[in-house]
Amino acid sequence: MTRRSFLAKSAVGAAAATTLAAPAIVRAQPAVRWRMASSFPKAVPAIWGASELLVQRVGEMTGGRFQISLHAGGELVPPFQVLDAVQNGTVECGHTALYYFFGKDPTWSFGTIVPFGLNARQFAAWWYYLGGEKVFNEFANQHGITAIYGGNTGAQMGGWFRREINTVDDLKGLKFRIAGLAGTVLSRLGVVPQQIPGGEVYAALERGTIDATEWVGPFDDERLGFHKVAKFYYYPGWWEGSAAVHAIVNNKAFEALPAEYRTAFRAATAESLQHFLARYDAENPQAIRRLVAGGAQLRAFSRPILDASYKATQEVYAEIAGQNPAFKKVHDSFFAHQRDMIVWWRVGESSFDDYMAQTLRR
Amino acid sequence: MTRRSFLAKSAVGAAAATTLAAPAIVRAQPAVRWRMASSFPKAVPAIWGASELLVQRVGEMTGGRFQISLHAGGELVPPFQVLDAVQNGTVECGHTALYYFFGKDPTWSFGTIVPFGLNARQFAAWWYYLGGEKVFNEFANQHGITAIYGGNTGAQMGGWFRREINTVDDLKGLKFRIAGLAGTVLSRLGVVPQQIPGGEVYAALERGTIDATEWVGPFDDERLGFHKVAKFYYYPGWWEGSAAVHAIVNNKAFEALPAEYRTAFRAATAESLQHFLARYDAENPQAIRRLVAGGAQLRAFSRPILDASYKATQEVYAEIAGQNPAFKKVHDSFFAHQRDMIVWWRVGESSFDDYMAQTLRR
Repeated sequence: MTRRSFLAKSAVGAAAATTLAAPAIVRAQPAVRWRMASSFPKAVPAIWGASELLVQRVGEMTGGRFQISLHAGGELVPPFQVLDAVQNGTVECGHTALYYFFGKDPTWSFGTIVPFGLNARQFAAWWYYLGGEKVFNEFANQHGITAIYGGNTGAQMGGWFRREINTVDDLKGLKFRIAGLAGTVLSRLGVVPQQIPGGEVYAALERGTIDATEWVGPFDDERLGFHKVAKFYYYPGWWEGSAAVHAIVNNKAFEALPAEYRTAFRAATAESLQHFLARYDAENPQAIRRLVAGGAQLRAFSRPILDASYKATQEVYAEIAGQNPAFKKVHDSFFAHQRDMIVWWRVGESSFDDYMAQTLRR
Repeated sequence: MTRRSFLAKSAVGAAAATTLAAPAIVRAQPAVRWRMASSFPKAVPAIWGASELLVQRVGEMTGGRFQISLHAGGELVPPFQVLDAVQNGTVECGHTALYYFFGKDPTWSFGTIVPFGLNARQFAAWWYYLGGEKVFNEFANQHGITAIYGGNTGAQMGGWFRREINTVDDLKGLKFRIAGLAGTVLSRLGVVPQQIPGGEVYAALERGTIDATEWVGPFDDERLGFHKVAKFYYYPGWWEGSAAVHAIVNNKAFEALPAEYRTAFRAATAESLQHFLARYDAENPQAIRRLVAGGAQLRAFSRPILDASYKATQEVYAEIAGQNPAFKKVHDSFFAHQRDMIVWWRVGESSFDDYMAQTLRR
């Protein structure tokens, strides 16, 4: 009898019987209840859905013993206070875009994305295998929290403009709703960055209080109807070549969990990330088709605008890095492999994507 | 007292105390042992490492009560009999590239990838949100198994050639180690597809028994040293614009698991997928740099070769679909959103990638 046929015979029916034949192990598992404060409203379905999946999976994996209640932005704490709330233990965990906390320390920006940064797959490569998770969490741990990578929107759009922007001069005086590092960069080129809560952007754009706004991409933008009041839809969103979302945990609370709950939380977050990006990639193509049919005019940022933005970005990075060692450390790690990744991308990925695009457009 | 400050005060120290305050729930959880047969050797670190992570996480999440032993290709069953082994219950689960089973039914190919198909993110979008998982597993369930998406290599290279291939005529009589649907397509253009076990390819290429071989991409190819015996390294690998790997489970065994073990298995597989692709994206850029430094000559397939391959591919699809309703059903689902996804990709993703490539190459 060969090894192969012995295995096949001895295994007849073995698969289904395994569970029944095994002894039951009685273990005491603590019931744990956590609260997750999200920075997001329920009205961004890919993001909100991913956080719902995360807490649902944690419950399922622990037989309902580790339950996390999920709260939309503003329900327990305001959207931009989620970091504080997790840090001080008001809630055990949060779901957020860490660049929201740029004002506390610009180093947080690398948790989401920075201008002229990495695309979604490059970000994951950096995070998991090129030192990103380690170097970023060294910084985050100093604030009592750990960030677990939990979502990505993919490349975002440059936003909605009431008029065409062709030259660098056209940026001067432009009232543009944009925040964080990108706002700082654009202010060097004469843009006047505006901070307006999401719910008020449409009205401000309609009245002309602002000239332009950026948001996410077709799937989310469509719901807010910006194309009805600002028809020029620009790309690329060079300040968000991808944008990561993280589950953040209070370190003391996380360490107090049984090891298997910690692993369940991490695995559930990874599964939610997988769904998060896939949902954007499934929905954006259909949404942009509808937006263009509804009157949106696609426009590419001109090369001079991109080049001026790139130059200003490098100046801003150099200035902040000169004053902020944590920023410099994460910045250097973040950009260390960018050039090599891009060179490979042209060969391996883009050559395929380019051929498919040329062929299917014919 | 505002709602905000009330919450902040009442929560002092709450995070760390949650676990201690909760009652312990005593539950009987069965000890389950499974075996996972991989189609892969340990020598492909990104793939093998992902399967190791998968079984490790399942153990951790269940407090060691659900243990899966992992076996490299050939250890329990030969690499290309993993599907049979899972189907007939010899093992409860496997880790494989489903297009290996093209010979049984070409419909299996869509589980991995097909020529001129989807890139890695587009595949995930199809699988999770555009009907892919459902339509593919309707087919897989007829064979007693379910496929859980667990890895992707990203875009693969077109392989190593001993001589340059410039025209469609240069393909005639070319002895090329390539299998599955791509082999069928290329045979229409005069290629003579060769089936040679992985361990024998280098020697065959060195002796000139074959003229060319495809494998994966820089990270895996480098270990096999093909650049020493066939210096022309072609791209894109149009038959593998991405390549998915799945964990496959015997349905009876999976249904016999406690619900929380099933969820743990799915979440661990998703986490392993996240690491799988990130590792390739981290390693390929460094490997291709070393390969080029070591003498590899990068060459793009010419447009006439790509166009002839595309045309032959469509003919092969039409022929198989005409005879095989399952193939037609999965094919139609797989390609239904391709054009829309590609149109969006040019705007959202490629416009960013292109600018970064142009800028960082200067």
